[in-house]
Amino acid sequence: MEKIRVMIVGYGNVGRGVLASLRNNPDFELAGVVSRSPERVKRELSDVPVMDVKDIEGWKRELRPDVAILCGGSKDDLPKQGPEFVRHLTTVDSFDNHSRIPEYFATMDRAAQEAGHVSVISTGWDPGIFSLERTLANAFVPGVRAYGFYGLGPKGGLSMGHSDALRTIPGVKDARQFTHAVPEAIERVRRGENPAFEPGDMHTRECFVVLEEGADKEAITKTILEMPGYFAPYKTTVNFISQEELNTKYKGFPHDGLVVAAGSTGKGNPALVEYRCQWGSNPEATANVLVAHARAAVRLAREGRKGAFTILDIPATYFSTLSREELLKHWM
Amino acid sequence: MEKIRVMIVGYGNVGRGVLASLRNNPDFELAGVVSRSPERVKRELSDVPVMDVKDIEGWKRELRPDVAILCGGSKDDLPKQGPEFVRHLTTVDSFDNHSRIPEYFATMDRAAQEAGHVSVISTGWDPGIFSLERTLANAFVPGVRAYGFYGLGPKGGLSMGHSDALRTIPGVKDARQFTHAVPEAIERVRRGENPAFEPGDMHTRECFVVLEEGADKEAITKTILEMPGYFAPYKTTVNFISQEELNTKYKGFPHDGLVVAAGSTGKGNPALVEYRCQWGSNPEATANVLVAHARAAVRLAREGRKGAFTILDIPATYFSTLSREELLKHWM
Repeated sequence: MEKIRVMIVGYGNVGRGVLASLRNNPDFELAGVVSRSPERVKRELSDVPVMDVKDIEGWKRELRPDVAILCGGSKDDLPKQGPEFVRHLTTVDSFDNHSRIPEYFATMDRAAQEAGHVSVISTGWDPGIFSLERTLANAFVPGVRAYGFYGLGPKGGLSMGHSDALRTIPGVKDARQFTHAVPEAIERVRRGENPAFEPGDMHTRECFVVLEEGADKEAITKTILEMPGYFAPYKTTVNFISQEELNTKYKGFPHDGLVVAAGSTGKGNPALVEYRCQWGSNPEATANVLVAHARAAVRLAREGRKGAFTILDIPATYFSTLSREELLKHWM
Repeated sequence: MEKIRVMIVGYGNVGRGVLASLRNNPDFELAGVVSRSPERVKRELSDVPVMDVKDIEGWKRELRPDVAILCGGSKDDLPKQGPEFVRHLTTVDSFDNHSRIPEYFATMDRAAQEAGHVSVISTGWDPGIFSLERTLANAFVPGVRAYGFYGLGPKGGLSMGHSDALRTIPGVKDARQFTHAVPEAIERVRRGENPAFEPGDMHTRECFVVLEEGADKEAITKTILEMPGYFAPYKTTVNFISQEELNTKYKGFPHDGLVVAAGSTGKGNPALVEYRCQWGSNPEATANVLVAHARAAVRLAREGRKGAFTILDIPATYFSTLSREELLKHWM
């Protein structure tokens, strides 16, 4: 069986995760990595073809990818890269700006239809697995409302976006933000109350901040606590720690989450469904889901399909390497 | 929008659940019920068309169903009814004899292909949702092994099959069996040990038995504890209680379960995924999943598809009443 040739577009945390994931998925082989800074990536990856992202004819000819996994950010990279890349080949991405997904889907669908290619957008664990679980819960327990919680474990989950927001504050040398789910809020959902939550009812935010020398603790605390959207709506705690403590005690990218929905069947028998995931590495989790979707995208393309797809449009068999016989015998 | 006309085939606990579920799913209407004992069903259902299951030309003409939900048992009913019904229309069933699913799929696929119809088989929560979650876990955490546990709550889950087995014992007037998951076994899976379990390591069985007058307690206890397959492999407790206590304290059809899989991403970061469901009524839960699959089956049929399908072959959008716009905007 010929292996699926994957090109990784952008080599940050998710790109590294995709590279690691491909080694655990023997039906794939790495075609190469393209980056805006190929020299930087080459220093890290000596045994892998690395090319400039802008050298389109070059990477098409030399890397011959079946599918591109776009590992850039949702704010600046994907809105430009997505429509550009899908003109040339099958793409998969983890566009995760929830409020702009309809717009991004429309853009990608148009570009993919025009080019006759497949584009699977907005996958990972949320959006992605959680989107699927929300939709299935609502279909199987009619009309049920699904809630998402993040950071259920004792350490909480590292939020990249909120960590970045902290690091933009003058006087902050480094910072990481851990999100915590409010256990009482989860219990209210489990009891079937279907509460109308404000964001601050569901999660709290814990900040670990390393200051530049001479920075003003009080002013920075105030800036954090009042930051609209990011921290103002939440119960937020700010801890000032040393760089060394941040690097040792709060390292890595752990995250976890829960989709929970409580409703009823028939004339009122209670029904509760929950999906929980815990990841030692959030970007590696996203990467694994991206790789399974790359498999699905290539299969859709080989069937002659075109346009944009989400996880909601794809049967489970397309993500799996298992044969129909194996699935029917051992997995049903 | 024209409603989907559903015919319920067989009016036991699942059939009653389907009837209740249709009322919660406004895109459906009940075409009618067909039964081997239409007179019995008519006594229970005065305001619903009830016909003899054997009067095929009759129900085709008078009920004009778009889809038949087959609510019979997997042992005797479905292997005969499935291939018969799919000759006439789209079918959905909850065939749940795991070891015979490949054979049943082949039979139904052949019959459905010949007739040009769609048949969705083996759905409910296990097989069904759990099959999907096992397959997704294995695809998203490459190679991970998923374990199924049942009866996690304090009361455990009512097993219909094991209750039936108890009731076949001479001297037993009535009985119900509750399955309990072994918490330590779940913890071993969560810790990533991927243990090789015997069935008795994962579950225990609790029997509540009402005796006929003059029955021999000790002999019946021995018969239960030594019953091969059903009880011999498990730590089993037998409680003799009155009919009144059985009817009040152990009534209904509660059940619950967990799919859990622990593996790793990249070079060894831990990954844990879990799907949990709790149902006040097990047959109503199955019925709800059947109804969502009836929606999917009709959509597949309207696209001109034919043959047998499982939950693994169907995208989530097919189960949902929500529009693409709604799904992209609020559910992704």
